[in-house]
Amino acid sequence: MKELENLMGVREGIRVVDATLRDGGLCNDFYFTDEFVKRLYLTNIKAGVDYMEFGYKASKELFDVNKFGKWKFCNDEDIREIIGNNETDLKIAVMADVGRCDYKKDILPRSESPVDLYRVATYINTIPQCIDMINDISKKGYETTVNIMAISQAQENDLKVALDMLGQTDVGCYYIVDSYGSIYPEQMTRIADLYLEAAAKYGKKVGIHAHNNQQLAFANTIEAVGCGVDYLDATYSGMGRGAGNCYMENLISFLHNPKYNLFPIIQFVQDYINPLKETVKWGYDMQYLFTGILNRHPKAAIDYTKAGRNDLTELYNEIILMD
Amino acid sequence: MKELENLMGVREGIRVVDATLRDGGLCNDFYFTDEFVKRLYLTNIKAGVDYMEFGYKASKELFDVNKFGKWKFCNDEDIREIIGNNETDLKIAVMADVGRCDYKKDILPRSESPVDLYRVATYINTIPQCIDMINDISKKGYETTVNIMAISQAQENDLKVALDMLGQTDVGCYYIVDSYGSIYPEQMTRIADLYLEAAAKYGKKVGIHAHNNQQLAFANTIEAVGCGVDYLDATYSGMGRGAGNCYMENLISFLHNPKYNLFPIIQFVQDYINPLKETVKWGYDMQYLFTGILNRHPKAAIDYTKAGRNDLTELYNEIILMD
Repeated sequence: MKELENLMGVREGIRVVDATLRDGGLCNDFYFTDEFVKRLYLTNIKAGVDYMEFGYKASKELFDVNKFGKWKFCNDEDIREIIGNNETDLKIAVMADVGRCDYKKDILPRSESPVDLYRVATYINTIPQCIDMINDISKKGYETTVNIMAISQAQENDLKVALDMLGQTDVGCYYIVDSYGSIYPEQMTRIADLYLEAAAKYGKKVGIHAHNNQQLAFANTIEAVGCGVDYLDATYSGMGRGAGNCYMENLISFLHNPKYNLFPIIQFVQDYINPLKETVKWGYDMQYLFTGILNRHPKAAIDYTKAGRNDLTELYNEIILMD
Repeated sequence: MKELENLMGVREGIRVVDATLRDGGLCNDFYFTDEFVKRLYLTNIKAGVDYMEFGYKASKELFDVNKFGKWKFCNDEDIREIIGNNETDLKIAVMADVGRCDYKKDILPRSESPVDLYRVATYINTIPQCIDMINDISKKGYETTVNIMAISQAQENDLKVALDMLGQTDVGCYYIVDSYGSIYPEQMTRIADLYLEAAAKYGKKVGIHAHNNQQLAFANTIEAVGCGVDYLDATYSGMGRGAGNCYMENLISFLHNPKYNLFPIIQFVQDYINPLKETVKWGYDMQYLFTGILNRHPKAAIDYTKAGRNDLTELYNEIILMD
């Protein structure tokens, strides 16, 4: 049983990662205004957030740069235009997907880049390619984390093998990723224990990236904190694909380290997130509950939402019949 | 630590209580159409819900019957008009507030009433009057539960004394009530242990009624289930005052007893709850997070919502300055 004292105290190792531009960018094809991004950057600094993820380092051979906003590609010069020399405590993160990133070519040595951390996202079946990426990127001088996605559909034994393989790289942190928002807090405890065991063996940290399909993104995040997980992803008002993520405002309210401040977050939600909600849709709704409880990719629910449908019973039957 | 096996199995003692008309009635002054109520009743039966709460047994001397829908008063004949003789497994519940109910006069013997359960709601400072109500109502033949509200502002020692005093009555179940939605799951575990200890001593059950101010109503409810809490309140799509309650659809998806069925709930949400949302407002929003994290009555957030305000920073300062 977790110790209530943990709720009152400060754990110095905790790192809050703002993933608004990256996971939120999946809701608007990364078309954020520069003003939004600049203000988000300044808000994260004031709020005491530890890392700000700007978006993806996506391959320009696979994706058409004219069909997405610039944060799908995260050119170093675009980041510099927002942050200058970033003489602050806020570190800069970018996500790189296995199989969708020309890392050897597109990721320059860290000394030439404003980026501090690359977060390498992989499925359980592409671990060797992921390791090649981690080796390349960490040799260039960056911090790295590894985000193994869709673990709710992976076998526990495969996961253990993957953590062992990754343990022998320079990766700094294993991320627990509840891609489908299907995990209950009791299960999260078991998963966190599995990750923490490997992390202890190899000297890594553990992180958590949750989705809100069952309204459990925040609950699973603080459950993981109680287990000893240190890297915590959140987005402003949960902005993220489908049901979205753990809300930054809830997480910052929960953490007791005085370096974190809620007020600038309230201001950003008031001035930038709430107005954005008028044109961009995300967040919990019953269609996302379906894919969450059935442990599926949210695609069917996202399509349902985009189409403006309201025949929930039909959707439920459609998802069930996909088997 | 809770056992994962509990997630796979069935606990026979669990009772699901639909509080949609009662807590949801606080959002629309109890003006539900008869069709809505009748269809909700039929849905609860199909879904395997154990109790349906119709509303309050409010004093007609304190409240003007012309200013509220009929479920604020729950006349026996109004309930009968919906349920006939209720020859089903679904039991009928009504809430009676200490100090706002003419129970001696208005509550008839159970043999003359369609009601099975009276839920007596009290604050920690009105326990003697609450005991008088429980004694009167249980002598008339009804099941009773006691819902001690706003415990996040009560002292633990006072709570222990209250549970001891109530233990000596015929009340069947102590309810943990997170009125302000301010409790975290780790704290819920401690509170549940406190209630369960008293419950074991006096042969009572324990229930949970959660609010969603921090998006933790469902998480706190399933945390409580894991601790051994049996009576679980939920409302359709969380309909309830302010940030609302634990969602019925999430709870039923979580429970594994095959007597519970999700599909009729989806249908009711599609046909009755989603259309209702066009005119009646409830559910999580940032203003409710404020009162939750600050452990306050949600009134300021409800007023803010009703007024259509969008100056969150002002509201936050107003609430802080109330101290």
